[in-house]
This record gives sequence, structure tokens and C-alpha cells, in this order.
Amino acid sequence: MNVTAARYTAASLAERFGLRLHGDGDPAITGVGTLASATAGQLSFLANQRYRGQLATTTASVVVVGEDDVVHCPVTALVAADPYVAFARIAALFESKPAHIPGIHPTAAVAGDAVVATSASIGPHASIGARSCIGAGAVIGPGCVIGEDCVVGADSELVARVTLVTRVRLGQRVLIHPGAVIGADGFGIAMDHGHWIKVPQLGGVRVGDDCEIGANTTIDRGALGDTVLEEDVRLDNQIQIGHNVRIGAHTAMAGCSAVAGSASIGRHCLVGGGAGILGHLEVCDRVVITAMTLVTHSIREPGEYSSGTPLMDNRSWRKSAARFKQLDSLARRINAGDKE
Amino acid sequence: MNVTAARYTAASLAERFGLRLHGDGDPAITGVGTLASATAGQLSFLANQRYRGQLATTTASVVVVGEDDVVHCPVTALVAADPYVAFARIAALFESKPAHIPGIHPTAAVAGDAVVATSASIGPHASIGARSCIGAGAVIGPGCVIGEDCVVGADSELVARVTLVTRVRLGQRVLIHPGAVIGADGFGIAMDHGHWIKVPQLGGVRVGDDCEIGANTTIDRGALGDTVLEEDVRLDNQIQIGHNVRIGAHTAMAGCSAVAGSASIGRHCLVGGGAGILGHLEVCDRVVITAMTLVTHSIREPGEYSSGTPLMDNRSWRKSAARFKQLDSLARRINAGDKE
Amino acid sequence: MNVTAARYTAASLAERFGLRLHGDGDPAITGVGTLASATAGQLSFLANQRYRGQLATTTASVVVVGEDDVVHCPVTALVAADPYVAFARIAALFESKPAHIPGIHPTAAVAGDAVVATSASIGPHASIGARSCIGAGAVIGPGCVIGEDCVVGADSELVARVTLVTRVRLGQRVLIHPGAVIGADGFGIAMDHGHWIKVPQLGGVRVGDDCEIGANTTIDRGALGDTVLEEDVRLDNQIQIGHNVRIGAHTAMAGCSAVAGSASIGRHCLVGGGAGILGHLEVCDRVVITAMTLVTHSIREPGEYSSGTPLMDNRSWRKSAARFKQLDSLARRINAGDKE
Repeated sequence: MNVTAARYTAASLAERFGLRLHGDGDPAITGVGTLASATAGQLSFLANQRYRGQLATTTASVVVVGEDDVVHCPVTALVAADPYVAFARIAALFESKPAHIPGIHPTAAVAGDAVVATSASIGPHASIGARSCIGAGAVIGPGCVIGEDCVVGADSELVARVTLVTRVRLGQRVLIHPGAVIGADGFGIAMDHGHWIKVPQLGGVRVGDDCEIGANTTIDRGALGDTVLEEDVRLDNQIQIGHNVRIGAHTAMAGCSAVAGSASIGRHCLVGGGAGILGHLEVCDRVVITAMTLVTHSIREPGEYSSGTPLMDNRSWRKSAARFKQLDSLARRINAGDKE
Repeated sequence: MNVTAARYTAASLAERFGLRLHGDGDPAITGVGTLASATAGQLSFLANQRYRGQLATTTASVVVVGEDDVVHCPVTALVAADPYVAFARIAALFESKPAHIPGIHPTAAVAGDAVVATSASIGPHASIGARSCIGAGAVIGPGCVIGEDCVVGADSELVARVTLVTRVRLGQRVLIHPGAVIGADGFGIAMDHGHWIKVPQLGGVRVGDDCEIGANTTIDRGALGDTVLEEDVRLDNQIQIGHNVRIGAHTAMAGCSAVAGSASIGRHCLVGGGAGILGHLEVCDRVVITAMTLVTHSIREPGEYSSGTPLMDNRSWRKSAARFKQLDSLARRINAGDKE
Repeated sequence: MNVTAARYTAASLAERFGLRLHGDGDPAITGVGTLASATAGQLSFLANQRYRGQLATTTASVVVVGEDDVVHCPVTALVAADPYVAFARIAALFESKPAHIPGIHPTAAVAGDAVVATSASIGPHASIGARSCIGAGAVIGPGCVIGEDCVVGADSELVARVTLVTRVRLGQRVLIHPGAVIGADGFGIAMDHGHWIKVPQLGGVRVGDDCEIGANTTIDRGALGDTVLEEDVRLDNQIQIGHNVRIGAHTAMAGCSAVAGSASIGRHCLVGGGAGILGHLEVCDRVVITAMTLVTHSIREPGEYSSGTPLMDNRSWRKSAARFKQLDSLARRINAGDKE
């Protein structure tokens, strides 16, 4: 873990973040760690009850806990309404980020009619296409490719090797991880006398303020009109977003999930890892989709939705799987039996 | 959406593409849009009956429709046997593509014994390895890496940050989107006394004419012999193709689908998003695999195939899932009951 | 397939790899091929019984077989306890690898305080960040981005366009394929009054000796502490490994599988393609997960585990799927019937 010279007393953290200090003493904190690994001088937290058993033996100097756990905390506690949120804010004090020097690296290739803010940082081997604009304080990391007619909003960061293909407009404070590809052609093909012809993809992509897009995630541009991420959408790694999809504000999607073309996802949704959402569907606000679920029709009521079968040992699973093929016939026999 | 100076009358489009003009007047068209968003001077289309309800209120000047819908079209119609195909051809008239200047960008690194056609365009920060050949009119976009012994056919385009690792031969008019990796080592390992040893991957990859390969898709090279895509194969984003797979002509695969090593897929197949096909299988021509289906055995009859369970609210799903584990025992009891 | 000037007699291969030569003659071998395609002068192998039918008609000069198949081999045989392992070793003799010239390519960008061994090779358009170290004989291919505070062990190879984001330490002889992203931010977010806040990702990634990481695979760095791959872990393409995951030595994962944050996978496990493992779980040693299975709880017994339903024609599947939704009600009726 990264160590910096940062040093804060527990009392100063309590005051800074509106937490209640519990216990004797006011230890100085110089870093953060897990309940199991934190050492003297470090702060930890308990947010997932799965780890509650580790509280009694922690060697952290301070633990951020909820009200219910404070009595079990053997060391100084900082009591928070939401310990995970409080920990996130504290941990940010101990984060060391690479320094980004404003200016254009001499190996970068910037089109003559691109516009780069003087406070922006353009890294080695980046290229920026015609008519694209890079906003104030933005960071374009090593090996990024920005195509034509793109906009990167102020204070956004493309970490490294990110591609914005064409007509991609990012809001402010957007963070995109390496390998992500935004604005590639949507998958539009039409069968014409035995051969595919390509349907032109004339739209773009709009990404709202404060979105985060994971490594190797792909977001295609619209066929007509734009693919849209509203503000504060959080996408993990290796997610696939088809053309003309719309994702509502504050929705979070876990790794390897996918949304097919022209589907519309609501606000404050949570999509589990590996889940798939078919095209042209609508999912309303505040829907939770569990991992590896396939959404095959629109969802109009908030709530949690699933598909799939439970984990089993393979021998038992084979028996259930074989019976699954007989389900209709079995059900007919039950129905027939009931009628007798 | 991108706007160009293109302008066509409805009658000229009808003549150019063999469509029937229906209705009064002959509006001039300067762009395209969806039924819901197109404005005066724009052309739209109706191909998916899901959007039929939008026809009556469209503000497009012209709509491409099928014969059945022409009576419901409130504006000038262009009547097509396949409205989606006709729209694709018309929309292409309004597409503005980046200009690719022939020649090698000064930041590119080209091996001394690579051969680059004078009409090819090699972008910034591209590298081309020993003995590779780039055909006439081909475009190697920014940040692409072409390894050794590769061939890029005439008029093919690697949009940006595409990697051809080694022994990859692309036909003509192949289009590859950013982040795709073609020709990496197949996943060949053998367990030898508790450690893995690597099985050399001595083959290559052959990609036929007119194929399209999506963003961040990976196609491994063969262990012995080649991995093969026949002509006009269309792969969406984040698809994984294992070593020695063969995919038949005109087959299309949706995002996040995968084919394991040495499987053979027929011609004119459609593979849904997130579907998986196990290794060493054969799938015949004209097979449709629905989304997130796992193909565990060869398919010898054309048709549509599926696996999985339907979408349910989580509470109901939990009950069904618990019963799935009991299926064999339930079936035995039905069978026993029938015998009584 | 790549042809080199290598030439070995069957007897010399038998001696070199401890195999038994069976049959008349001692043919000279200049290459390798499949049973179906190998020609005179080539060596093939039979390891997968699926291909046994091809043995009788092979035109290979020599075939590596197990003891049981030697009587059926129509040509000279090399008899091995494990034919696949023996073949892998022999095939390596015929592999031609690109030459990597030690030194730093003039287009590479190396931070002033990075350390590069003189025997390492840094390719075109690579960049290496502050305080990173590249070991002896290591190869950093074209377009790779190494961030800050990374270590690449001796004789490791990053083929091309690999990203090590920050605090990534690779052991010796690690092989990473193009597009892989190691050490990106883990997906740590906390909901705070309707907005997401980011949880700092302060840890790193440790990759043991002899690991292999596939194309476009992503491995996030730890939130606190490190994400860990022990030695000899083999990851195929497009795998997603969340923050703080630990994967035991000699475990192999097939393409498109995924492990969510803080899960711990044992040693000598095999994870099938597209399988998913939820976060904070433990999977013990020597577990096999079949393709596209979702692991929803910890596994404490070695063995094979599965979920999902079998492949069916779509019409039959629709009937079974509809009945799956009724399963609890059907089971209740069976139970009620039994009680009558």
C-alpha cells in the first residue's frame, strides 16, 4: 500500500467529517488498512458484517464503525451513520496520485484544429483528432486516441490507452480507465440477398458529469441520435453498452455486464456482474438485477430481478438439468393427476 | 448527429435505390433521423414493428416503409421490400468519414522489411513488424500494432489501437474496431507434474473479405493450422474466439459471445449476446443461438437453440431455484405416483 | 504455420524427452501438424480421444501417442505417459519467436527515475512511469504503458499494448498478452445521499512467477492491500479479476470468466469459460467450475460444480422455461399429493 507523509489525529478526523469520537485517547493516523491487516497508526473500518468477527482482534489504532458496533470495538472508534462512506472520505486523505504536468508531451500528435486547454495534460503517444476539444485541467494519459469531433470536459481523466472514436462528448470530472473504447460503430447490419450490409452509425456518445468507466469497457455510438450516460453513472470493467442505449443517473453496473442496443435503463439501478439486458427494452428506476441474469423483457416495477439456477455439485446438477428438459411433461402429469 | 451538405430529392432516392415513391410532392432530404426525432428535411424509416406507433406522428419529411405500412404513413413514403436495407443504403449518403491521408505518419515505426502500399495510410504511433504487408488503400489507425508476418488486405481499416500479433492475414475491406487483438497466443497449456507448461501456438489467423470485428474483441491464432473467419463474418464488441475456431461465411455474433478452441460454426448463423460455445463442437449452417445460451454439444439441425431460465422477480425466483435442486427427487415421485 | 530450419530424428526426440520409439524406421521431423493435416516429415499427436478416428489415416511421419493407442498407430510412434505434454515440448523446438533487441526504442518515453535493465527490450511507443523497474531480459512490447511504482520481473514479456497502471509487481517469466490492463482502480463506490463517492484504491497487484495473462484481461488493484495471483496462474482472454481477489498457484481460468472483489480462489482450480464467482467468497483447492456457472457461495469441498440449464431447441426450451416459473407451485402440489 502506498504510504504518504499524511498524518491526522482521530479527533481532527471526527471534526472534519462530522463523526463521533469514542474511546480514550486520540491516536495519530498515518495510513489505512483492513481490520485484519491494519497496524498501529492505521485506521480501519467495519461496513460489511461478514468481517465483524475481525473487530475484536484488530490491531488498527482507530476503527470507523456504525452505532451498533461501537460497543464491540476494542480500540478508539469513529462512529459514523455510514461507515463505508466515512472511510472512503478519510482514505482519500492518504491517497497519492500521479502528478499530471500541464502541457502536451513532445511525442503526442495533436491535430492543427484541435483545441487543448493550457491547463490540460496530454501524455506520451496520445493523439487528438480534428476539431476535438480538451477542457481545463483534463488529463489525457499515455497512448490515448481521441478521434474527430470529441469533447473532453474540464477535470476529466483518461488514464491511459483510452479511445474516443468520434463524436464523443464527456462531461466534467469523468474518469475513464485504460483500454476503454467509447464511440465505436454500433453493431448495425442488415441482411441483403445473403450478404450483410453495414448500417451507418451517424450518432455520437454523451457521457454526463462524474461518470466513471472501467477498463476495457466499450460504449458504441448511436446509429441515429446518441448513446447516453446521464450523470454519475458508474461502470465497472469489460462492460458492453450498445448503440442508442440510455443509462439513467446514479446507476452502477458491475463487471462484464452488457446492454444491447436501444435499451433504456433507469436511474439508481444496480446491475450485477455478467448480467445482460436485451435490446429495445425499458428498465425503470431503482431496479436491481442480480449477477448473470438475462433481462428479456421490460421491467416496470422497482425491485430485484433474477434468472438462472443455483450452484450445485456437478453430479446433482446433471440430474436436475436432465429433469429440466422434461419439465413440461412432468407438469402435465401433475395437472392430469390433480384432475383425476 | 453529423450533418453534411448532402441533399437528395425523394424521387432521386427512389430511382437510385429502386424504391417506389408514394404520396404527393417530392421533398428534398438533407439528413436522416428516427421516427420520433426526425425533423423537416429528414428521412426516417420503419423496420421494427415495435416503433409502428411512432409513424402517425412523425415529423420526418419522408419515411422508408414496407408495403404494409404505406397506407399508415402520414408523409411522403419510399416503399421498399426491406425498409432497413433501403434505409442503410440511403443513410450512407449522409455519412461523413474522416479523411485518411496516404502515407506514413512521422511518429509511426515501420520495420525495414515491411511493405506498405503507397496508397495506404499509417497513423500516428502505429508500428509495423518485420515482413508484414499493408495493402493498397488500407488504413492503419493511431496506435495500432502490427506484428511480424501479417498481411492487411486492400481497403481494410484498423480504426485505432488494434493489435495483429503475428501471422494474421486479413482479406479485403476488413474493418476492425479499436482494442481488438487478433492473433494472440491460443490458451494452450498442459499440466505436467503439478505445473503448467505452455503448448506452442504455431498457427495464424485468416480473416476473409468484408469481415467486421468489434471493439476489444479477441481472436487467438491457431495452435497448429489457422483460426479462420470466412468472408462477411460480423463480430460485435468483446467477443472471444479461441484458437483453431472456424466461423462460416455471413455468420453474425452479438457482443460478449464466445467460442472455445477448435469449435466450428456454420454459415449464416446468428449468435446472441453473451452466448458461449464449448470447444471441439460443430454447429451447422443457419443456426440461431439465443442470448446467454451455453452450447454444450454439436448442433446438426438448423433452427433456434436456447438455455437458461426466464426473468423473474427475485422472491419468486428464489423459490423456483430452490425447487430446481429438488427436481430429480420431485420427478421420481411423480413417476412413482404414476405407477401406483 | 511457421516453418523453420529445425530438423530432428524421431530417435533423437525419444531420447531427448524420455519417450519410447515404436515402429520401423527413424524418420526426420521438420515440423508439426494435426493428425488430419500433418504431411510427410511432420509429427502429430493424439491426446483427445475425440480425434482417435483420425489416427488410422494420418499422413504424419510420426505420432505421439499414449500406450493404449500405439497398436492402432499406422506410422512411427513416440509413446508418452502424457502425449499432450510430450507434444508441447517437441513443438517448442519448431517455434520461431520474434527477436527482441535489448535497449530502448527511440520512440519510447521512459521516466528519468525509472530503471531499465540493459538486457531488457523496450519497444516502440512504450512509456514507463516514475520509479518503475524493468528487469533483466524483460520485453516491453510496442505501445505498452507502465505507470508509476511498477516492477517487471526478469524475463517477463508484455507482448504489446499492455497497461500496468500503478503499483503492479510482476514476478519472473510472466507473459501478458495485448490489451490486458493490470492495476486499474478497483470498483469501489459508496452511495452518499443519492450520489456515488469513490472509495480510494490504495493497494496494488502482485503477480507470481510463471503466470500468463490473456488478451484484454483486466485485473484491478486492491483497495487496501493487494490483488494477488500466486505463481503459475494461467488466465485466458477477457477475464475480469476484481480488487483484492487472491488466486492460488496453478489455477487456470478460461476466457470471459470473472471473479468479483475480495474472493479467494484456491490452488489447482479450473474455472470454465464465462463462469462468474461472486465477491467475498472462498473457493478451496482443486475445484472445477464448469462453463458459465455462477458461484454464489463459498465452496469448501474439492470437486466439480455447475449451474444453468441444458441446451434445448428453442420451442422445447420455452415450455420448460415457462414451467420453471411454476416450479414452487408444482412442487407444493406433489407434496400435497404425497400426503393424501
